Amino acid sequence: MTELTVERAAEAPGAREEFLRRAEEIVGAEHVIRPGAEEGYRDPYPLVPGRSTWPGVRPADTAQVQALVRLANETGTALWTFSKGKNLGYGGPEPRGESMVALDLGRMNRILEVDDRLCYAVVEPGVTFFDLYEYIQERGLEVWMSVPALGWGSVLGNALDRGYGMTPLGDHSKQICGMEVVLPDGELLRTGMGAMEGTDLGPLFQGGFGPTLDGLFAQSNLGVVTRIGLWLMPWPEVYVNGEVTVEREEDMPVLVDLLTQLRREDVIQNNALCGNVVRAVTMNGPRSRWYQGEGSIPPERLEEIRQELGIGQWNAKFGIYGDKGLAERRLEIIRERFAGLEGFTVTARMYEGAEGARVAYEDIAEGDRTQMAGVPTLKPLGTINYLAEDGGHIDAAPILPARGEEVWDFYQEVKELYTEYGFDLYIGYHLYPRHMVHVTMIYFENGNEEMLGRARELYGRLLDAARDRGYAPYRSHVDYMDRIADGFDFNGHAARRFQERLKDAVDPNGILAPGKQGVWPARYRVEG
Amino acid sequence: MTELTVERAAEAPGAREEFLRRAEEIVGAEHVIRPGAEEGYRDPYPLVPGRSTWPGVRPADTAQVQALVRLANETGTALWTFSKGKNLGYGGPEPRGESMVALDLGRMNRILEVDDRLCYAVVEPGVTFFDLYEYIQERGLEVWMSVPALGWGSVLGNALDRGYGMTPLGDHSKQICGMEVVLPDGELLRTGMGAMEGTDLGPLFQGGFGPTLDGLFAQSNLGVVTRIGLWLMPWPEVYVNGEVTVEREEDMPVLVDLLTQLRREDVIQNNALCGNVVRAVTMNGPRSRWYQGEGSIPPERLEEIRQELGIGQWNAKFGIYGDKGLAERRLEIIRERFAGLEGFTVTARMYEGAEGARVAYEDIAEGDRTQMAGVPTLKPLGTINYLAEDGGHIDAAPILPARGEEVWDFYQEVKELYTEYGFDLYIGYHLYPRHMVHVTMIYFENGNEEMLGRARELYGRLLDAARDRGYAPYRSHVDYMDRIADGFDFNGHAARRFQERLKDAVDPNGILAPGKQGVWPARYRVEG
Repeated sequence: MTELTVERAAEAPGAREEFLRRAEEIVGAEHVIRPGAEEGYRDPYPLVPGRSTWPGVRPADTAQVQALVRLANETGTALWTFSKGKNLGYGGPEPRGESMVALDLGRMNRILEVDDRLCYAVVEPGVTFFDLYEYIQERGLEVWMSVPALGWGSVLGNALDRGYGMTPLGDHSKQICGMEVVLPDGELLRTGMGAMEGTDLGPLFQGGFGPTLDGLFAQSNLGVVTRIGLWLMPWPEVYVNGEVTVEREEDMPVLVDLLTQLRREDVIQNNALCGNVVRAVTMNGPRSRWYQGEGSIPPERLEEIRQELGIGQWNAKFGIYGDKGLAERRLEIIRERFAGLEGFTVTARMYEGAEGARVAYEDIAEGDRTQMAGVPTLKPLGTINYLAEDGGHIDAAPILPARGEEVWDFYQEVKELYTEYGFDLYIGYHLYPRHMVHVTMIYFENGNEEMLGRARELYGRLLDAARDRGYAPYRSHVDYMDRIADGFDFNGHAARRFQERLKDAVDPNGILAPGKQGVWPARYRVEG
Repeated sequence: MTELTVERAAEAPGAREEFLRRAEEIVGAEHVIRPGAEEGYRDPYPLVPGRSTWPGVRPADTAQVQALVRLANETGTALWTFSKGKNLGYGGPEPRGESMVALDLGRMNRILEVDDRLCYAVVEPGVTFFDLYEYIQERGLEVWMSVPALGWGSVLGNALDRGYGMTPLGDHSKQICGMEVVLPDGELLRTGMGAMEGTDLGPLFQGGFGPTLDGLFAQSNLGVVTRIGLWLMPWPEVYVNGEVTVEREEDMPVLVDLLTQLRREDVIQNNALCGNVVRAVTMNGPRSRWYQGEGSIPPERLEEIRQELGIGQWNAKFGIYGDKGLAERRLEIIRERFAGLEGFTVTARMYEGAEGARVAYEDIAEGDRTQMAGVPTLKPLGTINYLAEDGGHIDAAPILPARGEEVWDFYQEVKELYTEYGFDLYIGYHLYPRHMVHVTMIYFENGNEEMLGRARELYGRLLDAARDRGYAPYRSHVDYMDRIADGFDFNGHAARRFQERLKDAVDPNGILAPGKQGVWPARYRVEG
């Protein structure tokens, strides 16, 4: 196992102090957070306890971002971009080096446009899913948005970090259409069609003229994205909250194959979620309510709990959206596919508006106004306290091919690892047309050193097990970025060497998010 | 109007000769095409007559591409990438400078994999749409592909240049999943998940770890793409060839708005095509059959032709794919939307397989085995001879917002321009959810200097008219790349300056496709 914290030599100790002092002239003293301050930046669920908070600066607008970036170049200070809530970057607000400064974009929270004719929005980094949701509802705009599991984060940040939701447009990074970016030298760039002065096409067409630049700013330290266009979906006529439960554990491969095939055929319109019994227990916690023993909850007890909760060993959710007649036929097809399979049960609740109107959120039962219906929530946050009042978790989420038998094999290996380390195996699969995200979660007590040690070791074993099979996570905690990047090893890490080459060309002083996703600028790199 | 040909000073005259001589050792003498040779490379429909053919080299595999790229660096020779058929790059096989050499990838034509479980293919640059189609049919694989108007081109080249087809996966560049690329220094790069050794995930998940690199190689001179993963669709149960005709010219905005709304709602599943009477005339040519006068065919005559052909002023085509019950309901919705609109007629032919089987191509009437059904064809090639036996055309195809009234305004302006220059206005709109491609075509007689002069002038006026409204083409003939790139002018052409910065970092000797899409390497740039 490699070390968890990375500290590079290149950071000049006085640089940060000079940067913070002069930053006051740009953003005002009240928007400069000093090292160790109570309101400073920190990982809310630290895998390594005892770290202090980071200092930060909070610009009000793009011009201030440009000025801060230029000041960072002058002083040689590294900035770590993030936004309010827990993510502009799933890595959290914690920079990768002790001398870095958080660049907090939370104050830049303007919703510049929401258009329900062509179905798109233009937002700044500080706009949260709650903000955008309220904006749309207040104005009665006829669009649905897509939200991730927790609604407090940045819409822009989540999309940049390849976050996802559970509506038809749930692959958030693919809904980005046009960006405004402050480059590491302070220059302002607009991508795609928005690179023309005086055009409306920025948020409408994802191409442009010449090489497409947008992808460069995903999980990236090549620029500070200050604005994106984001596609939304038309408000549907009806909404169906569908469920498939499966009684026997070993039938999971059939479920994965059928759901992903239905998704490829566009019968199911979203990326289905499939959870196990432990997942249901975390939502009905604390754990002590169900089991008081040491180690993982044993299978026999899980089967009892399953029956007590009246759920399956596997519990999948899918969504249907749009015209009522189409929705009815989609449901028929889904039922036909699962009919005759022993232990498989399909249920669905269709919601429609009164007297032929489009469905309104008030028409939907409260329990079904969920992520799948594009409603932001903080409900999953409750599961954090699964083990203790002061709990945390880390999710291991590698990408796998959407082939049932492969998923089953990996699941067996992962289950053994969780058992070996004495944690309960939480499963929450996200099923896409060709791949799936194999989400498992390790719950822990904050500050419990023994348990955190076990959690870190298990997490490392999970990464290794995935990499051995050619799988890798789609995102990463800051502590694991180098290690995961190391796994992308084709032709002597050609991809990372190319990313580094771009980094050095665009950010020669290495001031923007050094080490983000394992890409370090020249001044930090240990060559050889 | 700026000049049509661009010649930069940096090309050393002896370099090309040395390159060609030494290239024989890499690819064999029979695969080195000498300057001026009959089988050399040229624009088949030149806007400026009298240019000679270009020399070229034809590597057999990726290792040879790497060797050629290294040789180009050593000798300072610029290579212009393209593939067989008319496009790896819509710019055609004609390089941008007199001293350049075509890098013809046509011999690299392996289909490495077609998987009809997860629905994808992995292909090399020389694979044409016909090749892939035959491969799929011969093996009875249960996938449909998407093809552009002409099937002779490169599947990979078309996708890289943002080409499109008319199936649900018709936005070809968005179906790319994973690339293998020879960088300008000869290094081999794999993007996305394929950047891991020993993984199956390359063609399955479009993201990766850290910045997404794939977009950089679209319409690009940053690398030679030697392999892509490409997503395909599952073979549908039924196929519907749908049509909407509109009698009155002025009802076009209603048609555009309704079709794009149905597309946003995913009721229509492909990007509809909408043509005018002139388009129908080109398919029933030659022109002299219908009109012998000078100048554009007058509106009165077009109305007569329309009635004679039994078509609309506007003739749209749309496709429906998949389950029969869903297809029937989709058709019902479409009919409801157009019902009661005077002069609008919806017709549709549904094709299904015998006795509940999936539809086979033999079940589809020959006239409907078209691009919309994923069948490659060369039929549109016949329209080239609209004016003369030896004819050509150039298409002006700016992107517009998909708002009927805007399209109508621009159409009025374009119509006046075509009339002013005495050409018939061919319209073939492609209607996407949020944007549309405003395709018009100028047909000309090859070598007719007077007519070509008018065509070039009209083309320039069309570009200006589009740019004045904030529209720009999504692709370009080599002769117009600089001019179109000039229109992307936000913040002093920040996008191009950024593209140049990447170019200089990745290709310091400037040997790969200099000037592609207006991006010139340092040694060619005239700074100022």
